Amino acid sequence: MDNIILDNNKLLILDQTKLPNEEVYIEMKCIEDCYNAIKLLEVRGAPAIGIFAGYSLALFHGNDIYKTKEYLDSSRPTAVNLTWATSRIVKAFEEGKDLIEEAKAIHKEDIEMCRNISEYGLSLLKDGDGILTHCNAGELATSKYGTGLGPLILGKEKGYTFQVFTDETRPLLQGARLTSYELEKCGTDVTLICDNMASLVMKKGLINAVLVGCDRVAANGDVANKIGTSGVAILAKHYNIPFYVLGPYSTIDFNTKTGDDIVIEERESDEIKNMFYEKPMALPETKCFNPAFDVTDHELITAIITDKGIVRPPFDVNLKELLK
Amino acid sequence: MDNIILDNNKLLILDQTKLPNEEVYIEMKCIEDCYNAIKLLEVRGAPAIGIFAGYSLALFHGNDIYKTKEYLDSSRPTAVNLTWATSRIVKAFEEGKDLIEEAKAIHKEDIEMCRNISEYGLSLLKDGDGILTHCNAGELATSKYGTGLGPLILGKEKGYTFQVFTDETRPLLQGARLTSYELEKCGTDVTLICDNMASLVMKKGLINAVLVGCDRVAANGDVANKIGTSGVAILAKHYNIPFYVLGPYSTIDFNTKTGDDIVIEERESDEIKNMFYEKPMALPETKCFNPAFDVTDHELITAIITDKGIVRPPFDVNLKELLK
Repeated sequence: MDNIILDNNKLLILDQTKLPNEEVYIEMKCIEDCYNAIKLLEVRGAPAIGIFAGYSLALFHGNDIYKTKEYLDSSRPTAVNLTWATSRIVKAFEEGKDLIEEAKAIHKEDIEMCRNISEYGLSLLKDGDGILTHCNAGELATSKYGTGLGPLILGKEKGYTFQVFTDETRPLLQGARLTSYELEKCGTDVTLICDNMASLVMKKGLINAVLVGCDRVAANGDVANKIGTSGVAILAKHYNIPFYVLGPYSTIDFNTKTGDDIVIEERESDEIKNMFYEKPMALPETKCFNPAFDVTDHELITAIITDKGIVRPPFDVNLKELLK
Repeated sequence: MDNIILDNNKLLILDQTKLPNEEVYIEMKCIEDCYNAIKLLEVRGAPAIGIFAGYSLALFHGNDIYKTKEYLDSSRPTAVNLTWATSRIVKAFEEGKDLIEEAKAIHKEDIEMCRNISEYGLSLLKDGDGILTHCNAGELATSKYGTGLGPLILGKEKGYTFQVFTDETRPLLQGARLTSYELEKCGTDVTLICDNMASLVMKKGLINAVLVGCDRVAANGDVANKIGTSGVAILAKHYNIPFYVLGPYSTIDFNTKTGDDIVIEERESDEIKNMFYEKPMALPETKCFNPAFDVTDHELITAIITDKGIVRPPFDVNLKELLK
């Protein structure tokens, strides 16, 4: 899936806000276009934002690269990959390197990292497996393969056939709008379900493994990821199905001791009651609780799959081992 | 909540298809109005359909009550309560009884049954409890109190304060559109969540008990109910939270040995991809799996609460005991 394209120094992105109904590529003509593309979520997913920001600053740094970096970084202040990528372009500038080449290197390294995760993940699956996934950790969030979906997309390239089920992932529906879209586009057999159908699909024996991405991994192996992930992990344990978490090694935060130290972002009621709908689905006065993430206890996780290898319990020991 | 009203021989219903955005009462002027009200789901929930059908046939039976019964029964062929209620009106007709009084008796008995369920359920809760519920088993589905929501609505009358969380219940959103609406209207503290947030709410210690209704109870205590119920039960077990199923004694089907004998209805993809939305949320070619119900294993259930009493495990023995 080509979601970020550099073609003859023209920077194009697939507008993710229009998916799955329209496939529209937008050309970036100035740094303001790039700023808006990040802010308006036309490009999303931490690795994808990093790659895009690298190209953006390399192409449109103007007279004052420091000021331009600061401006671009402010488009999504919580995105660590954004600042990381723009800092790397600034460093290349100070060292007199070719900035476009540096941006291409960031892009290439991301593909390699995702490919490594995908290879490790694929080694745990067998042809014909039924797979459940939650949210979107695929090519649209990275640039190729993805993390949680990586083994499926790489497996497809290698001729594997998987039967994939994707939770729609309320309230923002990334599973419906993005995961089912990108798996359909790459020819994988995919079936969309509502989040509350995962238990029945598992009970019917249709799932051999669960694959999810991750936002942060604590030192003890607790994993913060999209809301609903912990529920899927509990169901998987109940039905004796392996539960795999996939992400770059850089997602492991040794400064976060356990999941209890991770603050869960709460978002607006509007996303639950009104977003996407023709009419509101609850009264204006009805309260909502809308956490964006939850923490999956390490005891529920079969293995954490990184670009540096597969980590199994005890995670507190084995995650550190990987560092060596 | 007055969802079915007989006022001076005028039959009025609250149009549930317009909730929660508009509270519209429709007056039934002929048997065709009644037929359409059932067919178009303006009135829904097995007990509510039975009560409404009783009044409908009593008021508008015309010259041939048998033909009119047959016509009304065809409005929703799978609704057992509908045929049960119209048969009772026909029997009253044959016995020369007052048909309106017979319809009122059906209504009154339903309220008594729900009240008994609610009293038994309330005896298991304490003031201030946090409660999670799934789908809608409240007044809108019956006529007063309801089954799954009964202890909360009766508790409110008696001065209890509960902190209720309701799953929105995809894809038809009965939890959002109906449960949060009716609890809000009766002044109960209610918070709407997406189905995939139940795990986090339980983990935070906000839930002391789960209350759900039921569509059918097998002889061994396995319970068929709205899709997603089994997942909530597995989460409740994981977090050591009591899981209570509430319903009329008549919901127990001793001819169904276990949940494996219950056929799960599968519905259209359209309900997942398109319904309620401004634009489709997945590609037209994307497959969906859309089961309407699931079966909760009896081992996950703390107690089944009926109008005749509270049943605890072993259910295969104790459900039969209740019969005596």
